[in-house]
Amino acid sequence: MLFQVEMTVKLPPEMPAERVAEIKATEKAYAQELQKSGKWRHLWRVAGSYANVSIFDVEDNAELQDVIGSLPLFPYMEVHVKPLCRHPSSIREDDS
Amino acid sequence: MLFQVEMTVKLPPEMPAERVAEIKATEKAYAQELQKSGKWRHLWRVAGSYANVSIFDVEDNAELQDVIGSLPLFPYMEVHVKPLCRHPSSIREDDS
Amino acid sequence: MLFQVEMTVKLPPEMPAERVAEIKATEKAYAQELQKSGKWRHLWRVAGSYANVSIFDVEDNAELQDVIGSLPLFPYMEVHVKPLCRHPSSIREDDS
Amino acid sequence: MLFQVEMTVKLPPEMPAERVAEIKATEKAYAQELQKSGKWRHLWRVAGSYANVSIFDVEDNAELQDVIGSLPLFPYMEVHVKPLCRHPSSIREDDS
Amino acid sequence: MLFQVEMTVKLPPEMPAERVAEIKATEKAYAQELQKSGKWRHLWRVAGSYANVSIFDVEDNAELQDVIGSLPLFPYMEVHVKPLCRHPSSIREDDS
Amino acid sequence: MLFQVEMTVKLPPEMPAERVAEIKATEKAYAQELQKSGKWRHLWRVAGSYANVSIFDVEDNAELQDVIGSLPLFPYMEVHVKPLCRHPSSIREDDS
Amino acid sequence: MLFQVEMTVKLPPEMPAERVAEIKATEKAYAQELQKSGKWRHLWRVAGSYANVSIFDVEDNAELQDVIGSLPLFPYMEVHVKPLCRHPSSIREDDS
Amino acid sequence: MLFQVEMTVKLPPEMPAERVAEIKATEKAYAQELQKSGKWRHLWRVAGSYANVSIFDVEDNAELQDVIGSLPLFPYMEVHVKPLCRHPSSIREDDS
Amino acid sequence: MLFQVEMTVKLPPEMPAERVAEIKATEKAYAQELQKSGKWRHLWRVAGSYANVSIFDVEDNAELQDVIGSLPLFPYMEVHVKPLCRHPSSIREDDS
Amino acid sequence: MLFQVEMTVKLPPEMPAERVAEIKATEKAYAQELQKSGKWRHLWRVAGSYANVSIFDVEDNAELQDVIGSLPLFPYMEVHVKPLCRHPSSIREDDS
Repeated sequence: MLFQVEMTVKLPPEMPAERVAEIKATEKAYAQELQKSGKWRHLWRVAGSYANVSIFDVEDNAELQDVIGSLPLFPYMEVHVKPLCRHPSSIREDDS
Repeated sequence: MLFQVEMTVKLPPEMPAERVAEIKATEKAYAQELQKSGKWRHLWRVAGSYANVSIFDVEDNAELQDVIGSLPLFPYMEVHVKPLCRHPSSIREDDS
Repeated sequence: MLFQVEMTVKLPPEMPAERVAEIKATEKAYAQELQKSGKWRHLWRVAGSYANVSIFDVEDNAELQDVIGSLPLFPYMEVHVKPLCRHPSSIREDDS
Repeated sequence: MLFQVEMTVKLPPEMPAERVAEIKATEKAYAQELQKSGKWRHLWRVAGSYANVSIFDVEDNAELQDVIGSLPLFPYMEVHVKPLCRHPSSIREDDS
Repeated sequence: MLFQVEMTVKLPPEMPAERVAEIKATEKAYAQELQKSGKWRHLWRVAGSYANVSIFDVEDNAELQDVIGSLPLFPYMEVHVKPLCRHPSSIREDDS
Repeated sequence: MLFQVEMTVKLPPEMPAERVAEIKATEKAYAQELQKSGKWRHLWRVAGSYANVSIFDVEDNAELQDVIGSLPLFPYMEVHVKPLCRHPSSIREDDS
Repeated sequence: MLFQVEMTVKLPPEMPAERVAEIKATEKAYAQELQKSGKWRHLWRVAGSYANVSIFDVEDNAELQDVIGSLPLFPYMEVHVKPLCRHPSSIREDDS
Repeated sequence: MLFQVEMTVKLPPEMPAERVAEIKATEKAYAQELQKSGKWRHLWRVAGSYANVSIFDVEDNAELQDVIGSLPLFPYMEVHVKPLCRHPSSIREDDS
Repeated sequence: MLFQVEMTVKLPPEMPAERVAEIKATEKAYAQELQKSGKWRHLWRVAGSYANVSIFDVEDNAELQDVIGSLPLFPYMEVHVKPLCRHPSSIREDDS
Repeated sequence: MLFQVEMTVKLPPEMPAERVAEIKATEKAYAQELQKSGKWRHLWRVAGSYANVSIFDVEDNAELQDVIGSLPLFPYMEVHVKPLCRHPSSIREDDS
């Protein structure tokens, strides 16, 4: 089941540089693991921002919560979720 | 080059049913042609709405305008565009 | 799988009274059928408005779209959807 | 009398981890006590967020204020309240 | 039980003048009857607008819905409701 | 002359508890003095929030500014003001 | 007593040209009469819009309502009111 | 050339009282100097707020930027600017 | 003197096709004349919309109002204006 | 390919003055280098604010992200991006 998720990251300006580097590295590793598992299907940077547009493919709402709530950057994110489903005009077999 | 486009359709309530059917059919044919050409890469319905989330893959801003401005439903749509680019944590080769 | 859905109805002021009565009757019959089936789990009026707060229990996003998109009043509604899941502090067995 | 309440929690990033754990534990105990008493009728997590959608069943507005204002996390919450009442199309006997 | 209700009236510009006069007269009669009954405790015009700020004193949420949903101008109003209760610093005996 | 005033209090989370208690006590004393003088005519808690809805009865805009700007909690408040006047449908003699 | 009033005019596109000319002429005559009386102290066009910023000098809120509610264009306006008073740093004797 | 400028001041709660007094005194002196020069034509307090409505009379956009950007409180202000010009219904000779 | 102006066009859906063609032709001729005179310095389409971003170079606010208020599409536009001036980091001689 | 970018700078009030001066100097040098390269085509101050309106001319979305994400002030900016393309009424050869 697909969800579009937009995440905007707002790190506190006073966070020490090492802590920033560390949390970003953990986030990247976690994001890549989720992509490999197929749960984080697409991940794009929104040009000109510290934000992304993502497509998640999860079992249900509960798994979406598990996955997003476990992001290392979650406490510093503004997150917007839209449930998606097959569009009647879509021709892609794998997009639902 | 990728863009996320969100379209919400608001047809005037007084539009005759035949006109609605006609414009939707033309829209569908046009959307499928664009998908076949690869320009409209993804098309999803936002569940519970008359809206979609789409990913376009076009040459440049000008082509994006051509493609969206030619949609039969364009005069009845609210459209939001976000330019996308490769995310440093992405592992998909074809997502940029 | 649960979703909270808020619907606000805005009928065009020029809609004839018989048409209003007819569409409301069809809506009511459809809403009650969906409640009996268990898909529309809760339905409350928001006091002082022509709006409701509802909880749907559906198979997935696609079924949510089917159910809401088929509402007779759908073309006249503003709809907001929130995907829900079990809260870690919840004690109700049947609320997820 | 029923109210829909949406709560979004925003803890200050500088709050020490022990303090966070402590306040969450107190909140959970209090929330479960209120659920057992019947006053906090439903409690759902909004998937992908640190927010919940809840249904309270209280005597009156004053009790709603007592219950919500006493939440340990109240000083860190954004709260939205909607008064609910029976919907004319509802078929559930216990939903008003 | 008290509620603050703000109502902003937006009549369609094409409504005939006699119809406007008629609906306003009915609204006034109904508003005065509700004031006499004690249910519509205060009614003020917001200066420079076609809007009012009101305080209702009703049994519960259901009665609030009955009273507001029956206003002749209800289909042409934008309505905002806030549930009120006694303020701990209030000194008025009759304000809760 | 009447004004509706809505005040939402946002105390900084790092304010020491004694300072909070002190400022709230001063605020309460000041609010009750203003109520006794008749200038702060009504004061209600908005249920489920740290906010109030108030009706002030002052000489003019300048006095409104004096009264509100002198509130001990003023630096921590978001304040919205609406000038009120007699509603043509009001039947209360003392509500203007 | 001074108020800042911002008015944005939105005439329905289907209003006949003669009716537009007529209502604008009546509005202009009324606005100039109010300026001569001193009640409409300043009137400026917001450059690039069909809107104005105005300063009214009236007895009280009730007179503000009388003056604005009687504008021929009132039913087609969006109006925002801010009560003003003397600023402690002002040096103009006539600006309060 | 005239501009309407609205300034809302938000001082950080942790700013020491002497620093607040100092910056306000500098601001006042600067504001009065600008009023004497004729560049800051009107200055009003918005009643019930720490905000003002002002009319500036400057040579051009560049001078507006110089004047506002030099305000001692500028780093702590939210500022909104509207370019003004003569209104066709205005009768004041000096209001453009 | 420079201004950024954003214009979004919303034609009423019921406007006859010939009238649309006519008003667009008049708008285009007028826009090109203003560009030739140097007053409309830049004109870009916002990709994926019926909107433009423009830079005007006019004598003063009054001329901005003349130029924009005379656009044939002005009654169907939402217009946002920002006064611009030279940026201290700019290196272009002709950009102020 | 052109993009309109609006940047609003919000420096934390507690940033030391030397750090502010340093980051602004680095930003200025970087901005001027980008202007010389042709990538930052226009840069204007929005009068009365700590914000700019800019036009970037870059290869694609990815380069836009590189350029903006590398701004020294990027962590302290709110950024809004609009993709631009040639307007059918434009007469400038170099504006697309």
